[in-house]
Amino acid sequence: MTRPNNEYMDAIIGHKFNVLDKGYLIVADYMGDEEKIARSARVSYGDGTTKKNNDAGLIKHLVRNHHETPIEQVCITFEMKLPMFVLGQVIRHRIMSPNVMSARYSVMPDEFYIPSLERIKAQSKTNMQGSGEDLDGFTKNAIHSSIKFSNKASKHDYDMLLEKDLTRELARGVLNQNQYTKMVCTFNMRSLMNFMQLRKADDAQWEIQQYANVLCDIVKVWMPNLWDAFEDYRLNSITLSGRQIEYFKSFLVGATDGYSRDLMEDFYNGINGNNMGWSKGEIRETIEKFERLVG
Amino acid sequence: MTRPNNEYMDAIIGHKFNVLDKGYLIVADYMGDEEKIARSARVSYGDGTTKKNNDAGLIKHLVRNHHETPIEQVCITFEMKLPMFVLGQVIRHRIMSPNVMSARYSVMPDEFYIPSLERIKAQSKTNMQGSGEDLDGFTKNAIHSSIKFSNKASKHDYDMLLEKDLTRELARGVLNQNQYTKMVCTFNMRSLMNFMQLRKADDAQWEIQQYANVLCDIVKVWMPNLWDAFEDYRLNSITLSGRQIEYFKSFLVGATDGYSRDLMEDFYNGINGNNMGWSKGEIRETIEKFERLVG
Amino acid sequence: MTRPNNEYMDAIIGHKFNVLDKGYLIVADYMGDEEKIARSARVSYGDGTTKKNNDAGLIKHLVRNHHETPIEQVCITFEMKLPMFVLGQVIRHRIMSPNVMSARYSVMPDEFYIPSLERIKAQSKTNMQGSGEDLDGFTKNAIHSSIKFSNKASKHDYDMLLEKDLTRELARGVLNQNQYTKMVCTFNMRSLMNFMQLRKADDAQWEIQQYANVLCDIVKVWMPNLWDAFEDYRLNSITLSGRQIEYFKSFLVGATDGYSRDLMEDFYNGINGNNMGWSKGEIRETIEKFERLVG
Amino acid sequence: MTRPNNEYMDAIIGHKFNVLDKGYLIVADYMGDEEKIARSARVSYGDGTTKKNNDAGLIKHLVRNHHETPIEQVCITFEMKLPMFVLGQVIRHRIMSPNVMSARYSVMPDEFYIPSLERIKAQSKTNMQGSGEDLDGFTKNAIHSSIKFSNKASKHDYDMLLEKDLTRELARGVLNQNQYTKMVCTFNMRSLMNFMQLRKADDAQWEIQQYANVLCDIVKVWMPNLWDAFEDYRLNSITLSGRQIEYFKSFLVGATDGYSRDLMEDFYNGINGNNMGWSKGEIRETIEKFERLVG
Repeated sequence: MTRPNNEYMDAIIGHKFNVLDKGYLIVADYMGDEEKIARSARVSYGDGTTKKNNDAGLIKHLVRNHHETPIEQVCITFEMKLPMFVLGQVIRHRIMSPNVMSARYSVMPDEFYIPSLERIKAQSKTNMQGSGEDLDGFTKNAIHSSIKFSNKASKHDYDMLLEKDLTRELARGVLNQNQYTKMVCTFNMRSLMNFMQLRKADDAQWEIQQYANVLCDIVKVWMPNLWDAFEDYRLNSITLSGRQIEYFKSFLVGATDGYSRDLMEDFYNGINGNNMGWSKGEIRETIEKFERLVG
Repeated sequence: MTRPNNEYMDAIIGHKFNVLDKGYLIVADYMGDEEKIARSARVSYGDGTTKKNNDAGLIKHLVRNHHETPIEQVCITFEMKLPMFVLGQVIRHRIMSPNVMSARYSVMPDEFYIPSLERIKAQSKTNMQGSGEDLDGFTKNAIHSSIKFSNKASKHDYDMLLEKDLTRELARGVLNQNQYTKMVCTFNMRSLMNFMQLRKADDAQWEIQQYANVLCDIVKVWMPNLWDAFEDYRLNSITLSGRQIEYFKSFLVGATDGYSRDLMEDFYNGINGNNMGWSKGEIRETIEKFERLVG
Repeated sequence: MTRPNNEYMDAIIGHKFNVLDKGYLIVADYMGDEEKIARSARVSYGDGTTKKNNDAGLIKHLVRNHHETPIEQVCITFEMKLPMFVLGQVIRHRIMSPNVMSARYSVMPDEFYIPSLERIKAQSKTNMQGSGEDLDGFTKNAIHSSIKFSNKASKHDYDMLLEKDLTRELARGVLNQNQYTKMVCTFNMRSLMNFMQLRKADDAQWEIQQYANVLCDIVKVWMPNLWDAFEDYRLNSITLSGRQIEYFKSFLVGATDGYSRDLMEDFYNGINGNNMGWSKGEIRETIEKFERLVG
Repeated sequence: MTRPNNEYMDAIIGHKFNVLDKGYLIVADYMGDEEKIARSARVSYGDGTTKKNNDAGLIKHLVRNHHETPIEQVCITFEMKLPMFVLGQVIRHRIMSPNVMSARYSVMPDEFYIPSLERIKAQSKTNMQGSGEDLDGFTKNAIHSSIKFSNKASKHDYDMLLEKDLTRELARGVLNQNQYTKMVCTFNMRSLMNFMQLRKADDAQWEIQQYANVLCDIVKVWMPNLWDAFEDYRLNSITLSGRQIEYFKSFLVGATDGYSRDLMEDFYNGINGNNMGWSKGEIRETIEKFERLVG
């Protein structure tokens, strides 16, 4: 018996995946492979059970049925350079082990996030935490310059305070949220799946999505069967509530001469007068789900 | 401002809910109400957002979208008397604070679980961890007596070892898994929701379901809106994987003259020859989900 | 049986304890009292043990021997307004439930931390994360003005970006670490004890110490016996390593004509030539501990 | 950059360390080495600090000052065969990932713990959870036979219930706590240090000490500097409370003609009449600590 390893992971250890304008993600270490997940699961099942046919099937089974402790037996350590506001989102994940660069100990580097022109968008009117319309070129350029200037001013003020010999722990108060910092963290694969699902999602901030995407690309090669199950049962899945099921069923069953696209339209129109007690948000989500179901 | 409280919870504190033949569950303490969940959520949203119309809607929103930290702000402490094998299942929940009766310190009481005659069933042939066919009355009675006898023997051996002055910590080795023990534990409501969903489910062992059911009944009255959302989006929901959605859609879209029950049968028959790479278990689950959708 | 409560806690719920120049801490909810801790501990000990004489003694016993799950049965929820850089330190505590104001959803308020003149100190030469010498009045005033100016500039740039309709999630990038934000969090008492010990300590940043001090003052009244034990065994304690014990002992035993203050001086002088493999930091800590022991 | 590895760990992967009469511990996987801990710590300290001289010194510093997140970046996965009552103690550690053999799925093997004759001792009169006097040979043999018989009866009853086709999940109710089971678990090194300290201690049950000892032996070779620091600052250390320090100091300072062994005896005699509010247990512990300090 030898330590589980994976060629791809061995090859990318230490490789710098560039993220955003100045950030990166580096895999520093990992533990486990798909065979380990399967073997750990089989400890639970013991010898009294029929032999599960194969690892791939067993892994799908674990993901499908949320038997996730075997997936926790796999870990990954990665280092990131990331803006402070992204750090604030990463650090919210509690089932992981972080070490973050300390602005009390260290002089922070002269590196600040500047969003690209394409990324500069108007605030969405409907989604409080999202971006909406495109902005005109002139405004975009003005915003771009303004952010660059603001970053520079932040750094300038910081340096001046340090020059006056103010403690680092107080001087960093004038550094803005675009300031890049560094962290190393270890996730187990179950917790990382939660991270990827949450932070790759459309409603996550675009900047953290970029880090999540790199992780997804890595896991995809490292653990193809786990990824396939994760993608199928988690990323691409929809969950229908009990009431959504009832509503959907009532439509199909009521359609004596069968399902039709027209009827579905009526259905969507009718949904607003429903007595399900659905909010506008839930109605929108329900229609989106039904759209996915009936194509 | 006063401490959040709930009349029902105040009334049942200390009340013994009987569970199984000799067990119980007692609510010893609680913290929070639905208004607290809503208020905590609003801390995240801040003042810059449109006022969420009402607490009930906000709570449904939190459950539907898995924004669960506000739900963690609510806690409950309960005490249970429960067989050792049920304890083994409860203690697996890591996001909680347990205190368990120590068989090193204490002499264990003469109380053992004896399943009722109705509960005595044959091992399922298909489900490794479930019960199957009914057994004949004679066999049931024989099993019932055998368990009672076995419990008594276990207790007798234990007492004899203590009489010989063996350390409690070793003597308890002969006590069987039907031995009742006691524990007190504090869950936050998010973790309790996971507990209830997992342990109330059909594939949970019947004995732990009985404890979960008592907790469900309590939460239902304590937090009716949270319960309603939990029931709708979690207990009564179905999750369709990306491939299940594709399959379902192909059926509906292919049905040019509309949906029909007959066609659905073909579909079920056809599914076995699918190229989705589904295992027998997944095919069974898929059909069960489709059945729920099309009635 | 009624829900455990505490008069002092009931009285201060909702009360705003001012912290720093614009921050605060409010107790929003709590669960449990000292009697609950003792009762939970007694569940572990069961009936087979001699009755522990009293709650106070039992609580001291638990703290002294690190039997801390009974202490987890007590919880507190508090709300804080705090600068971003203090939030970064609070959020590092993983055994707790936080809800933080979202700068994606909300427009951040015009409130920034400005350290008082007394707080403005020079960077320590020896302690990377601490403050050292006092600065002259002129420099202090210059720093003070500079921070105020920097805060205002940060806010100005933020407002301008919002005016140009940039998404909030990107605009907040120019807000600095002095920006005040809000959070609500629930700690169990064991985790809070870790928080208090770590954040009340001399080497914690002064700003977070102020929040920790308020919590300490509250716990002191709420749970006087727990506090007394916590103060005695944790805050005021010293831990001597195996090698420090050996060294200390060699001194006492070698002193044939008894202990004397002079001898101790020799000892301190001699310690630098020790072969314990101690670093300068450890030597300093060792002497500090010995000083406490011999007065 | 290559994946951190360790020759010793690579050599022992899969090796069965026998524990107790029929149990074992096998290292199945590991992640990290001492250099990784140091490198992770340096991420926190950043570039602005003076270079820490070496990894060994830095690791000692981390352990001494309880900066333990860098230590969490190291993980180990091990498999154990262990009696049910030991499992009950292992599973109490919440910061780890376990997979336990399921007695619902599996038929439990015919393997039961039988304590050796040397291990069979009388219940301690003073320590509720410990062993006391030796027992006479006749009693020991009687106990030994009795446990063996009890184990066999337990297994016999279990088999009979399975033969009658009772569900496994109910049949296991008659299996006793000496039943061997299997688990695999992943700990990070911080959590494992807590495990080792707690379970290697004299007041831990002897059986779990045997598993902890194997883990200690492994960590000692894998991470010699971490082990050295752990042993010095944790295993061999003593913690003196604020009041114990006062008392100790009063003795040394009061001893005008110096410290003497005789005086210390008076001190011990006098301690019972102290006004420190110490319980008998605390007085015993205080004297034990003072004994270690003054030799």
